[in-house]
Amino acid sequence: MAGDFNILGMVGSLRKGSFNRGLMEAARERLPEGANLTVADIGNLPLFSEDLESDMPSAVRTLKQQVERANAVLIATPEYNYSVPGVLKNAIDWASRPYGQNSFNGKPVAIMGASIGMLGTARAQYHLRQMFVFLNMYPVNQPEVMLPFASQNFDSEGKLTNETTGRLIGELLEALVGWSRRVGD
Amino acid sequence: MAGDFNILGMVGSLRKGSFNRGLMEAARERLPEGANLTVADIGNLPLFSEDLESDMPSAVRTLKQQVERANAVLIATPEYNYSVPGVLKNAIDWASRPYGQNSFNGKPVAIMGASIGMLGTARAQYHLRQMFVFLNMYPVNQPEVMLPFASQNFDSEGKLTNETTGRLIGELLEALVGWSRRVGD
Amino acid sequence: MAGDFNILGMVGSLRKGSFNRGLMEAARERLPEGANLTVADIGNLPLFSEDLESDMPSAVRTLKQQVERANAVLIATPEYNYSVPGVLKNAIDWASRPYGQNSFNGKPVAIMGASIGMLGTARAQYHLRQMFVFLNMYPVNQPEVMLPFASQNFDSEGKLTNETTGRLIGELLEALVGWSRRVGD
Amino acid sequence: MAGDFNILGMVGSLRKGSFNRGLMEAARERLPEGANLTVADIGNLPLFSEDLESDMPSAVRTLKQQVERANAVLIATPEYNYSVPGVLKNAIDWASRPYGQNSFNGKPVAIMGASIGMLGTARAQYHLRQMFVFLNMYPVNQPEVMLPFASQNFDSEGKLTNETTGRLIGELLEALVGWSRRVGD
Repeated sequence: MAGDFNILGMVGSLRKGSFNRGLMEAARERLPEGANLTVADIGNLPLFSEDLESDMPSAVRTLKQQVERANAVLIATPEYNYSVPGVLKNAIDWASRPYGQNSFNGKPVAIMGASIGMLGTARAQYHLRQMFVFLNMYPVNQPEVMLPFASQNFDSEGKLTNETTGRLIGELLEALVGWSRRVGD
Repeated sequence: MAGDFNILGMVGSLRKGSFNRGLMEAARERLPEGANLTVADIGNLPLFSEDLESDMPSAVRTLKQQVERANAVLIATPEYNYSVPGVLKNAIDWASRPYGQNSFNGKPVAIMGASIGMLGTARAQYHLRQMFVFLNMYPVNQPEVMLPFASQNFDSEGKLTNETTGRLIGELLEALVGWSRRVGD
Repeated sequence: MAGDFNILGMVGSLRKGSFNRGLMEAARERLPEGANLTVADIGNLPLFSEDLESDMPSAVRTLKQQVERANAVLIATPEYNYSVPGVLKNAIDWASRPYGQNSFNGKPVAIMGASIGMLGTARAQYHLRQMFVFLNMYPVNQPEVMLPFASQNFDSEGKLTNETTGRLIGELLEALVGWSRRVGD
Repeated sequence: MAGDFNILGMVGSLRKGSFNRGLMEAARERLPEGANLTVADIGNLPLFSEDLESDMPSAVRTLKQQVERANAVLIATPEYNYSVPGVLKNAIDWASRPYGQNSFNGKPVAIMGASIGMLGTARAQYHLRQMFVFLNMYPVNQPEVMLPFASQNFDSEGKLTNETTGRLIGELLEALVGWSRRVGD
């Protein structure tokens, strides 16, 4: 792991003023020394169909390359209907395919999330953790970054104003880099 | 509930020869007296974004109407990465929106699933059940229709050949209609 | 359902000053007209073993009778290690046995919980909901009563001081009675 | 990690002829070079109560010492009511206490399970994995050892007869030792 530590960010919301995009930007400002962050564009993927795998759409090929080049993955996601947004799950489904070519295999991963309600995306995060078992990803256990009442914790330009969460994001990034040193290939 | 009992089917895979589409067709052949089945087209929906809600895409409006006109919902889904396919979740996310206009509210629902592996989509089904709490849907408890080793249980034209599962699907439909009589509005 | 509506309460903590016992007492003060509440004693059960089933311990027989006589079940539980306390699960395991004599079969059920931390026992509650599928219980969807930061919400005598939660408990009880009228046998 | 590699086994069933005890014995016969296995006695623990923590019962102290001395934990568990047996959860609750003295902290862990039904304890295993996030344990992702139809896979003396599962248990143990080398302190 000489040289840069490449983190691929994935944001579960496509909304322009997304709070979770705000979390991702807060992470960008707190990157540990030597780490860099690229955020994947998952809004231009088609809906997954195995029938399309024989001629992979170019947006899928781009996503898979980004995942494969990353030393670790960082997810910022809202919770929709007590689970992971379809948009984010669709990106995960694509990058895990075709069979035997799961781009996530062996990647360390960390999660954070902001929600309007009181649970801070907890339910979505545990569904993600179940996926990681199949994907053979290595999730950071702690800290868990779950920001409730999001609308009170960002300013009018979508910038995180909650300092405790900002500090936790910093700790999560440190944990992700340290954990990657232990479990990474 | 005089007159027809309208079931809206949702299939979690877009693959042409989908085993789960095969399950849905097996359900069509076993509909209880007075019940009919319409299968939603979820493959033409855009990826969900709250920014699109102010001018709902026509495919979303169609889906929401179909759900609202249904007396009950029947889901047939594969399991992707130990959870619900992004494609299906995207459809659920759309039909639950905008805020306060959740089309699924109060609908009885039943689940079935076929998988290549040994668990028969169990993990995806429990994630769906968690969503139903938020969506305020009323899921049938039993029977649980989980068909493992799908590739051995359909013929070359995608027709279900497993008789036990066929019988279970019939029981699930009877349970869905009976349950809807108890909990339906 | 002429006559009384019998609710069996189960509390997931054995601690004397338990916050969740406090929630149960708050429920007792808000019982709908015609409803009564008995709280099961689950602290005197042995650890479950199938070897003991041939001569059921008397504490188990008492619990099973209480469940069977109830029109509905009300659970108040803390969350231990992101799931249901072993104490409560042990009681559920006993009352579901022996095979074919599940006392919970067909019972409506409602859940509430208080936690020291910020999630209000959400994770424990969703694990309970998964159990209800097997137990064939009918859970109330809403409201979900999840009280975080419990130590700030009870007085020195263990009495609930949070009025919003008190009101929600009243709504939960009304929902349980109404739901039982729809789904009860 | 010079010298022996100590694995602490925990079996979720107290039944004398337990299939999961059979899995644990199958693991004992397949221990990697240098590894040894001690199986905890969780049947003599009292039901957890925080009120007992000030004077920890001796069975609890023994369990906590065993966990702390182990390099890794191996769990063999049945599934009761679609989740972890209360007996096993009670042991986990005890060993995680008192607050700030979680004996499982930082331990690598592997899971296996045998069930009468078709899912091989999958549901219980994912509930365990959620607990590991809080406990800060490091679970092996793969292989997942889930043995369905247990009554057909053990002989009259409780010995595992299914060779595929035996081989998988060997792989799980190798994975546990290798994983512990990466993540262990």
